[in-house]
Amino acid sequence: MFKILHKECQTQARTGVLKTPHGEVRTPVFMPVGTQATVKTLSNQELIDAGAEIVLANAYHLYLRPGEEVIREAGGLHGFMNWRRPILTDSGGFQIFSLSTLNRVKEEGVEFQSHIDGSRHFLTPEGVIRIQSALGSDILMPLDECVPYPCEKDAAEKAMVRTTEWAKRSQRAWLSLDGSSGEERRNFLFGIVQGSTYPDLRKRSAQDLLELDFPGYAIGGLSVGEPHAVMVEMLSETLPQLPEEKPRYLMGVGLPADFFEAVSQGVDMFDCVVPTRNGRNATVFTFKGKLLLRSARHTRDFQPIEEDCPCYACRTYSRAYLRHLFKAEEYLANRLASLHNLAFFIRLFRLMREAIEESRFMEFRKEFERNFEEANKSESDGQ
Amino acid sequence: MFKILHKECQTQARTGVLKTPHGEVRTPVFMPVGTQATVKTLSNQELIDAGAEIVLANAYHLYLRPGEEVIREAGGLHGFMNWRRPILTDSGGFQIFSLSTLNRVKEEGVEFQSHIDGSRHFLTPEGVIRIQSALGSDILMPLDECVPYPCEKDAAEKAMVRTTEWAKRSQRAWLSLDGSSGEERRNFLFGIVQGSTYPDLRKRSAQDLLELDFPGYAIGGLSVGEPHAVMVEMLSETLPQLPEEKPRYLMGVGLPADFFEAVSQGVDMFDCVVPTRNGRNATVFTFKGKLLLRSARHTRDFQPIEEDCPCYACRTYSRAYLRHLFKAEEYLANRLASLHNLAFFIRLFRLMREAIEESRFMEFRKEFERNFEEANKSESDGQ
Repeated sequence: MFKILHKECQTQARTGVLKTPHGEVRTPVFMPVGTQATVKTLSNQELIDAGAEIVLANAYHLYLRPGEEVIREAGGLHGFMNWRRPILTDSGGFQIFSLSTLNRVKEEGVEFQSHIDGSRHFLTPEGVIRIQSALGSDILMPLDECVPYPCEKDAAEKAMVRTTEWAKRSQRAWLSLDGSSGEERRNFLFGIVQGSTYPDLRKRSAQDLLELDFPGYAIGGLSVGEPHAVMVEMLSETLPQLPEEKPRYLMGVGLPADFFEAVSQGVDMFDCVVPTRNGRNATVFTFKGKLLLRSARHTRDFQPIEEDCPCYACRTYSRAYLRHLFKAEEYLANRLASLHNLAFFIRLFRLMREAIEESRFMEFRKEFERNFEEANKSESDGQ
Repeated sequence: MFKILHKECQTQARTGVLKTPHGEVRTPVFMPVGTQATVKTLSNQELIDAGAEIVLANAYHLYLRPGEEVIREAGGLHGFMNWRRPILTDSGGFQIFSLSTLNRVKEEGVEFQSHIDGSRHFLTPEGVIRIQSALGSDILMPLDECVPYPCEKDAAEKAMVRTTEWAKRSQRAWLSLDGSSGEERRNFLFGIVQGSTYPDLRKRSAQDLLELDFPGYAIGGLSVGEPHAVMVEMLSETLPQLPEEKPRYLMGVGLPADFFEAVSQGVDMFDCVVPTRNGRNATVFTFKGKLLLRSARHTRDFQPIEEDCPCYACRTYSRAYLRHLFKAEEYLANRLASLHNLAFFIRLFRLMREAIEESRFMEFRKEFERNFEEANKSESDGQ
């Protein structure tokens, strides 16, 4: 499923290619988040133009609405969205524990109330695999128990042990699916490492999952409020435990600084709502730092967001126009800022891959951080 | 400025071409409304793909935000929006009287409070021409006094007389502009017929404006709540007063039934927020009637909005997917429905022009109405 193309010598960074039923994905990769079977505000063509090779969707959300059976009838998510490239679906464990109310975890599964209409539901690891099978995902994630930050060690351990137990059951359910058998498996189920901020729990979680021999491993439960240094430490505790030849996916992360750190430690896959969420809030990324488009400084700023960015927003519109759209609460603003941010994130990953291939990842990181972080430090970009 | 290409014999319908500084516009034409210098939710490329040859913007809105001087610095609206085809700007008379509060009409102009921040403003006919000159419009509209429906005859007459008086002053202000002089005028100022629902007032308004010899005439103050039959009557009282060789613009109208009626009476130009506003509310137009995309009947409806529609929404997505997006309150829904509706309206006008050229406008109208209106009558498209 995964082939490493190039390993850096200075760092653990590597480039590779994920082979999925709907095509190949070059890693390290940023995966745009399409929670409800749509990357917010953007069309498929815009995702393709931005260079997206894979998108995420969320089993919890789609189970609640429109229901996985509707999507199965549409030919799976690929048919329903008419997105023909790979799709990874998150189980929604994170959402069940963060969005829904009154959730109760039992050995069998988790009971919760829908965040949409308050209806009661009970989902098991097996059920979540069946949902993702109906969705036709290329890469499936098992149901996991996500704890908030900070979390007492006892609770973190219990959740970690349960996550591993559920991973076993998920794998069994997945193996019983039609699509999982034979030489050419139609899709892939990853394992998820948990353990909050406790190095020994993270280590144990990874080791227990290794016995199950998943085709890829995700690191969950980070970027949930802990300091950046703690995230870095957890990565350096976890990653050496994972088999080098398999893809590693850092869930829900993050910002450019996180990417550089995690890629240098050998992470291959990322997803985050930042490009679209920040875009909708008028914050755009450039290689010279972030811009707050609502700021009065952009009133007569007739240059594009970023001069050499090939995205439609930058080729067509000025910061002054975008500021006007945001101030006037025009939908087009959200679209254009989301589009640019996504193009920026995907371009950043392409440049990281090129730097890894040319064994100059550290230099690229330093150069990026100098231009990006320094710009933001030196500016007081008030609204 | 205006050349009639073909006149029908059965009706007063005609095709023509408007020649503006930013290119030609084939009539009858539907002009998408871009009140705040953006056709809500849509990019320029989408407008071009839908076949839009001209867009509207609104002087009142743009004067308040971002201010006409910002737009002048950006190279006028064409530079600010990066829209290189013709632009017609409405003066905003209608908006001053409908959106702002505490407006007081004096002979000199109108005092009002901004609907955005309550700030006080005073606009004169001359000021509104200067604003539109800063915006760089191809076609300007003079400040008019719009009365609501219903309106006492005394008040309607006063407003009509004032509108004509303001039209004179607007024309004087316009003639003093750089762009208005010489053989090749850079832009055009239309006159606006008012008179509420009183045939004699409409007639007098038209006749008084004729003396000013505007290059085109608009009919204002209709589609403000009066019955369709009253609008039809006012058109038939007004249009014969207007010179045949000049373009006629029916402001703020409307729906397909209105277009067919008005075009058959000789109207050339239309604008309306219906395609985008209805799109945002999940109502889409097809040649077989309207669809309410939130309806449960579309849950598993995997066909496009309209089978033979060339728009991106129809080429890419199903009704079931669009329904899901609307139920999930996803922005993309508003975009796709607006895009389809605009493509539908513009396609309808193209087909009307073809029917006029081939002298079968009545047949086309009957066929359209049979398919469109009957479909909606026979269906109870409940949510």
